[in-house]
Amino acid sequence: MTISNKALDLFVERIALIKSYEESLGLLYWDLRTGAPRKGMDVRSEAIGNLSGQMFKLATAPELGEWLSELEQSDTYEGLSEIHQRLVTETRKEYDRSVKIPPKLYQEYVVLTSQAESMWEEAKANSDFASFEPYLDKIITYTNQFIDLWGVKGTRYDTLLDMYEPGMTTAELDRVFGGLREKLVPLSAAIANSPHQPETGFLKQQYAKEAQKKFSLFILEQMGFDFTGGRLDESAHPFATGLNPGDVRITTRYLADDVTSALFGTIHECGHALYEQNISKDLIGTTLCTGTSMGIHESQSRFWENVIGRSMGFWKRYFGDLQQHFPNQLDVSVEDFYRATNVSQPSLIRIEADELTYNLHIIIRYEIEKQIFNEGVKASELPALWNAKYKEYLGIEPENDGEGVLQDVHWSGGSFGYFPSYSLGNMYAAQITDTLEREMPNFWELVESGNLIPIKEWLTDKVYQYGKLRTPSELITSITGKSLDPDYLFRYLEKKYTDIYKL
Amino acid sequence: MTISNKALDLFVERIALIKSYEESLGLLYWDLRTGAPRKGMDVRSEAIGNLSGQMFKLATAPELGEWLSELEQSDTYEGLSEIHQRLVTETRKEYDRSVKIPPKLYQEYVVLTSQAESMWEEAKANSDFASFEPYLDKIITYTNQFIDLWGVKGTRYDTLLDMYEPGMTTAELDRVFGGLREKLVPLSAAIANSPHQPETGFLKQQYAKEAQKKFSLFILEQMGFDFTGGRLDESAHPFATGLNPGDVRITTRYLADDVTSALFGTIHECGHALYEQNISKDLIGTTLCTGTSMGIHESQSRFWENVIGRSMGFWKRYFGDLQQHFPNQLDVSVEDFYRATNVSQPSLIRIEADELTYNLHIIIRYEIEKQIFNEGVKASELPALWNAKYKEYLGIEPENDGEGVLQDVHWSGGSFGYFPSYSLGNMYAAQITDTLEREMPNFWELVESGNLIPIKEWLTDKVYQYGKLRTPSELITSITGKSLDPDYLFRYLEKKYTDIYKL
Ligand SMILES: [Zn+2]
Ligand SMILES: [Zn+2]
Repeated sequence: MTISNKALDLFVERIALIKSYEESLGLLYWDLRTGAPRKGMDVRSEAIGNLSGQMFKLATAPELGEWLSELEQSDTYEGLSEIHQRLVTETRKEYDRSVKIPPKLYQEYVVLTSQAESMWEEAKANSDFASFEPYLDKIITYTNQFIDLWGVKGTRYDTLLDMYEPGMTTAELDRVFGGLREKLVPLSAAIANSPHQPETGFLKQQYAKEAQKKFSLFILEQMGFDFTGGRLDESAHPFATGLNPGDVRITTRYLADDVTSALFGTIHECGHALYEQNISKDLIGTTLCTGTSMGIHESQSRFWENVIGRSMGFWKRYFGDLQQHFPNQLDVSVEDFYRATNVSQPSLIRIEADELTYNLHIIIRYEIEKQIFNEGVKASELPALWNAKYKEYLGIEPENDGEGVLQDVHWSGGSFGYFPSYSLGNMYAAQITDTLEREMPNFWELVESGNLIPIKEWLTDKVYQYGKLRTPSELITSITGKSLDPDYLFRYLEKKYTDIYKL
Repeated sequence: MTISNKALDLFVERIALIKSYEESLGLLYWDLRTGAPRKGMDVRSEAIGNLSGQMFKLATAPELGEWLSELEQSDTYEGLSEIHQRLVTETRKEYDRSVKIPPKLYQEYVVLTSQAESMWEEAKANSDFASFEPYLDKIITYTNQFIDLWGVKGTRYDTLLDMYEPGMTTAELDRVFGGLREKLVPLSAAIANSPHQPETGFLKQQYAKEAQKKFSLFILEQMGFDFTGGRLDESAHPFATGLNPGDVRITTRYLADDVTSALFGTIHECGHALYEQNISKDLIGTTLCTGTSMGIHESQSRFWENVIGRSMGFWKRYFGDLQQHFPNQLDVSVEDFYRATNVSQPSLIRIEADELTYNLHIIIRYEIEKQIFNEGVKASELPALWNAKYKEYLGIEPENDGEGVLQDVHWSGGSFGYFPSYSLGNMYAAQITDTLEREMPNFWELVESGNLIPIKEWLTDKVYQYGKLRTPSELITSITGKSLDPDYLFRYLEKKYTDIYKL
């Protein structure tokens, strides 16, 4: 017992140390992306590399393995608090995953992906898949080596999925994505054929940046973003980062000729931020003090951006405020604005896609990744595969690979298994909304009256506070009483778009 | 030879690693002081503590001592490059200093000074020296223990001086400060008695912050501050921090009712920044990549702030620009502005003191610190000692300890030996200016025509590029051909103030 207490202390101290590195590295990255002087970036990257290396050493040290083994003894484990139990389980998973990759192999892979990212940027700009193909091919080979080293449970692709969405499997995704795709493809086609297409021209005018910023700050405040525990900055690619629950930073980008980009971007990142700001204080200093998965994180950003932010109720309350910021540009009705910001149409570029077709972009990527790792499809086959799927599900085809298979950065960094998170987020969000509407019958009244705080509090109670203390499937089951069901998302989209497009 | 090469590689790699921690910690501190959300500060402080602890471990590890010993073997050492030789010498000094303090003792001291800083803040606000005295007493006791552990060479106070100004001794400071004091006291008295006191009321009007900022940025550009390798932010207490030569950050604070505070503060910090931005690229990744001492660093900030920034030549060129920024407030002649920004009068508060009397504030602190460590003067004796010296040198006495012995933060943090740096900076600056005027005969023409870049380049050549590669005394001797001589500063001040006050 004394020995185990000692092991527990050392273990907890090590985790806190690792968390300090994570927080520091988080700040170094935030700084690089928000305003670090260009000339210092090479040296800064070295510093990041050095600190990451130190953290990796601490996270893979033999003594950590020994403490874990001690704490996993059933007598000892049973005596641990819920937080410490989960911390042991989580750390074991990360530890095993990390120590199984030989450092030299990992180093080669880091160099490869770093080169590949540069090559990808050029290849995308030139729509030149051939120049990127050998890199992609090697990244797939390395990833397959990692899968072998980690050990396959279920299918090979499951091993990758589990990194971003713990417990998620190809079988489960086949079920939910399959169900969704079957229904979304005809719905999307019906929308495209509707004679009632919204007018959107007024969104593309000159919108002064300062006024956009003011309105963004106003909406953040309305959503309950805590400015004493966070801040809003600008960056080329918007992101949210939770350094600790008292320091959660989001960024946005203001486009002078588009009022919706920064607006919905800010609401989206604020959804991520509300999650990070409201994690229980009990988890501070542990690696559980973050969102439980990419999919659940996206469910929160997308709940706020789409379910709330793109709802008629929200704009009934806030459109007047937005008009006051842009009196010359927004001389339209709230219905016109609502319909314009909810246009749905097949498109080639994922990050510009609407709430509905976005899911088809993701399902295409999921099916391709699954084929790569479970069926041995080669890098060289991807452009044709990509184009065929876009034709089949969205009815359109890229004119070149720059707007096709080369459009996303993810594969050049080796992030296979990440894409499904986005649509999982949409599905989780719709399913949680269904419960929310039932448990809080005045939900839409609250939105229409701009009383968003009780909604944030409900989500804190159900989702945010737990951090990584509950797995995604535990969370969705405990909240909604059911496992993940794609029909919630479909019914939500069907209802919304039937109304907008008068189907 | 093979063994030594191996030791050299490991040594250089370790130094680079330590430098990465320094850079990361520098960013963490910068962030805390420029806009980190309040709520996250406790957790951030833990992260800083954890990373500092890790850096300390790496800097005091036995293997580092072994590599040093190997590299110090005369055969090996002679074969090293100049940079590596200096790196070995510097690191040995730091290493010995650090390993001599038992970690437990140091930990107690860190806790003590952290408490003492809070206590000091309260004590200062209440002018209550009694509440701070026991803390100050303990800090002195700990410092004396450290001196014993480090080993005394010369006097006990020399051991402290050497931390901030390598090679500086009490004997040397007695000589230079003694010489300076004897001449400054009567000069200051003559100024106070002059009937020609400048009019300063116009400086204290409303000066819009945005216009102040615009002018600050303009002056930074004129001075050759590299914005692609640096940035300007705001903070409560202005500072400069060189994270690496390509990322040097300065801060300022804009006072709405005082146009000079941010202006001269920015020029001062830019002086520090020019030093850090122009260190040779060869020193990047080593602990030599920073200013060589506090005194030399201050010589650069003070050269730019006082010698250049408070000169008639500078304002002949730039006063018109400043007037354009504040046409309603600055309807005065350039002579009036010059005289107003060079008022000299005895005052109680160091940080508000002018260029001349500032040195007397420093000499008082120097003499007191020397008495504490070389003569055993007790904390309880300090208020009386302080007040007597202010009376003697400046002719005025504090009404309470808040504006007297409690005014500075330094002692609460244990920074004994730091104060002399400020006046050393003034002396170095005046002595370097003398050489500069002789080697660059058109120096003042350049200033008057706003052509400051050649001056920056001369200083890069003589000072900046070397970083810590030359010691302060090597530097001053190599530039001016003489060791430190306080008469340069006195003659500079005498000339300037005789003119302004028509003595
Ligand atoms: Zn997101
Ligand atoms: Zn300074």
